Amino acid sequence: MNTKTKRFILPESEIPKAWYNIVADMKNKPMPILHPATKQPLKAEDLYPIFSEEVSRQEMNQTDTWIEIPKAVREEYKKYRCTPLVRAYGLEKALDTPAHIYFKNESVSPVGSHKLNSALAQAYYCKQQGITNITTETGAGQWGAALSYAAKAFGLELAVYMVKISYEQKPYRRSIMQTFGAQVIASPSMSTKAGRQILTEHPYHQGSLGTAISEAIELALQTPNCKYTLGSVLNHVSLHQTVIGLEAEKQMEMTGEYPDIIIGCFGGGSNFSGISFPFLRHTLLEGRKTRFIAAEPSSCPKLTRGIFQYDFGDEAGYTPLLPMFTLGHDFAPANIHAGGLRYHGAGTIVSQLKKDGYMEAVDIPQLESFKAGTLFAQSEGIIPAPESCHAIASAIREAIQAKKEGIQKTILFNLSGHGLIDMTAYDQYNAGNLINYELPDTTIRESIDKLEKLV
Amino acid sequence: MNTKTKRFILPESEIPKAWYNIVADMKNKPMPILHPATKQPLKAEDLYPIFSEEVSRQEMNQTDTWIEIPKAVREEYKKYRCTPLVRAYGLEKALDTPAHIYFKNESVSPVGSHKLNSALAQAYYCKQQGITNITTETGAGQWGAALSYAAKAFGLELAVYMVKISYEQKPYRRSIMQTFGAQVIASPSMSTKAGRQILTEHPYHQGSLGTAISEAIELALQTPNCKYTLGSVLNHVSLHQTVIGLEAEKQMEMTGEYPDIIIGCFGGGSNFSGISFPFLRHTLLEGRKTRFIAAEPSSCPKLTRGIFQYDFGDEAGYTPLLPMFTLGHDFAPANIHAGGLRYHGAGTIVSQLKKDGYMEAVDIPQLESFKAGTLFAQSEGIIPAPESCHAIASAIREAIQAKKEGIQKTILFNLSGHGLIDMTAYDQYNAGNLINYELPDTTIRESIDKLEKLV
Repeated sequence: MNTKTKRFILPESEIPKAWYNIVADMKNKPMPILHPATKQPLKAEDLYPIFSEEVSRQEMNQTDTWIEIPKAVREEYKKYRCTPLVRAYGLEKALDTPAHIYFKNESVSPVGSHKLNSALAQAYYCKQQGITNITTETGAGQWGAALSYAAKAFGLELAVYMVKISYEQKPYRRSIMQTFGAQVIASPSMSTKAGRQILTEHPYHQGSLGTAISEAIELALQTPNCKYTLGSVLNHVSLHQTVIGLEAEKQMEMTGEYPDIIIGCFGGGSNFSGISFPFLRHTLLEGRKTRFIAAEPSSCPKLTRGIFQYDFGDEAGYTPLLPMFTLGHDFAPANIHAGGLRYHGAGTIVSQLKKDGYMEAVDIPQLESFKAGTLFAQSEGIIPAPESCHAIASAIREAIQAKKEGIQKTILFNLSGHGLIDMTAYDQYNAGNLINYELPDTTIRESIDKLEKLV
Repeated sequence: MNTKTKRFILPESEIPKAWYNIVADMKNKPMPILHPATKQPLKAEDLYPIFSEEVSRQEMNQTDTWIEIPKAVREEYKKYRCTPLVRAYGLEKALDTPAHIYFKNESVSPVGSHKLNSALAQAYYCKQQGITNITTETGAGQWGAALSYAAKAFGLELAVYMVKISYEQKPYRRSIMQTFGAQVIASPSMSTKAGRQILTEHPYHQGSLGTAISEAIELALQTPNCKYTLGSVLNHVSLHQTVIGLEAEKQMEMTGEYPDIIIGCFGGGSNFSGISFPFLRHTLLEGRKTRFIAAEPSSCPKLTRGIFQYDFGDEAGYTPLLPMFTLGHDFAPANIHAGGLRYHGAGTIVSQLKKDGYMEAVDIPQLESFKAGTLFAQSEGIIPAPESCHAIASAIREAIQAKKEGIQKTILFNLSGHGLIDMTAYDQYNAGNLINYELPDTTIRESIDKLEKLV
């Protein structure tokens, strides 16, 4: 029996005072975001109609390495931060591996995931600017739940467009948002032109993230004193999530080890960026050798099988053009239970870092992800979110490899959230009803070929 | 904006090394548990066929003030303990009260409630004795979920009889238990004589806690090397839960305050005992004046409207006779969403303490409980379990009273669990579908009158 420290805890006074803006330290900056019609680079001001001014500036900031976290946001972080860094003794034992496995436990956030780190910041900046109403979209509901609490905390009215199939299949997440006081609308809806058009053509349309984004942006543009918010992909969201890695850096010091491998699951990139960037800083500045692994679902493999190319951020093609690894904006990912990873592209910073060889990516089949999640639950006591299962699966692969090689490696992964609201997914897995979705090269090629003429 | 400490955190080294056995400090010990046929006091050995030997001895222990927590149990506690003590600045502000409100956050346990504190101990003692299989029953599923993880942690096979209506209405909790590796059987079932009898007479029986207890005990008695476990009511369960109050005592010292009022919601008594007993020690030994309030649902008011009397612990009358405040063992509580509080009696220690005037009780109507829980969610970010809402409602009553009197009181309550798996209850509340169940005196009297001839 091991009597060493299991959870490394930092006091409230160690909550970071600034976010880390990795772009300032990158030799090759991400290529500019382009206006879809003029193909000219956008300025921060071009984003003001949609986003709050401060996050618009953060989105374009390539010079300031550290961006101060407002005091009011840090006060809200106190409700759950610093989150624990945990040595996964139970998982190590189950794998009989010489590897030391650590995880940063973002599942202790009251809404159950890391999403709150950016939701609080975005809500605060809107409030500070005198905004009264905000909108967003949500798929599985992690982002929507986080923003619902954040909006309440800063006294904003929130409307969430929730993909209709999730609205119906995940009633608990809808109910969480409503309990925090948000308006939740199943998308497509009759409340926007975009929604009405789709419903007129397809009365039984089940919704998609792309449609929900269009509806949320439209409502924001048509409502007085209202802004739109987004939970991943964009630079400012990754920025806010660096509190994860900044804390983890101090906590790894407490362990006396430095990670050889750092892993996050990958949808749009926010939790992966959050755990990685503060450690990547030492690679960029000091040449420190660390492997960074993005674990994506094999049914939505933009980093492992997509191409680097300008593409739209949404399905319908309403957003600016982003330089990113993509499967094509109308790529339709299979209906896996890790809803938060069903996105066609990777954020522009991560895409540039991948292009420049600073990081790796692996794709994890759905069944392997749930097998890993179940082993983790039984050995560590926490049922992980289906998204987080991908990071765990990747960590397990590395731990098994370490055993084969007989090397004591130090692995750190981000547990982005718990799966207590996703138990239907485990039910399906336990019942043997889940499958691995095969994704033929031709499907990807067809989707990517359509991008040729964009820029 | 308040920049003072919000969460008071203890390091792993402060996890208690012994549980506090309040009975050793009580002048008036609880009256003995009686054999139902002979009416003679039971000895620890009489419980060996059903429970592990160590918890049987703990159940009867009236002399040892401190009982050592086994090292292996403390190692498991490290996965989530020490839990935070939180200053509820948000709630204080929402109530505009001069009271200082603190809560002990047991909802951060990986299974979402305090139940794990005793589940780990009970599973460990079974394992230590060479037991291979254990059984239990569960209503809403908090206890079953906790024991499922505990059984897996110590390598035991577990069968959980889950009340059929919960099995069908709370599929997430069933699925959590199964993901941890437990067998979950809807009760009444065909796997026991007790279940078969009921199903033969009532094929569509929806189950009850009493029936599920009978099935779990029967299976334990008929399975080689198998014991039964229980999640509340009994003395050894309250004993294990004292880790809550022992930690809170140290954490209140960190705040520089001592609670004037300590509150726990009340079903069988385990979480109330856990938070209260270590503080009550100072009342018993030093005459320290603190108010202890058990918050029970007004639809199941054993402490406020029941009588002190020997009664059975279960509906069917299979258990020994317990001296307790009770509504009568065949009292049928209304179908409130706080399933964990739907129990007819109070544990024997709490009953004696109530009889001797060391504590108070209040009854909270269902609508008041959810109103309190929603205010707490919106001001503190955590959606509380329907059971915990009763403690919150009582704390709010006291905070409002403090405001009326213009007195700065210090209030501590136990947040026994989160409500993320209970969102259907909030849905019903938000939709205006919940009611307060009126409970006429005649209903209680009828139920209590039947007890007259028991002892």
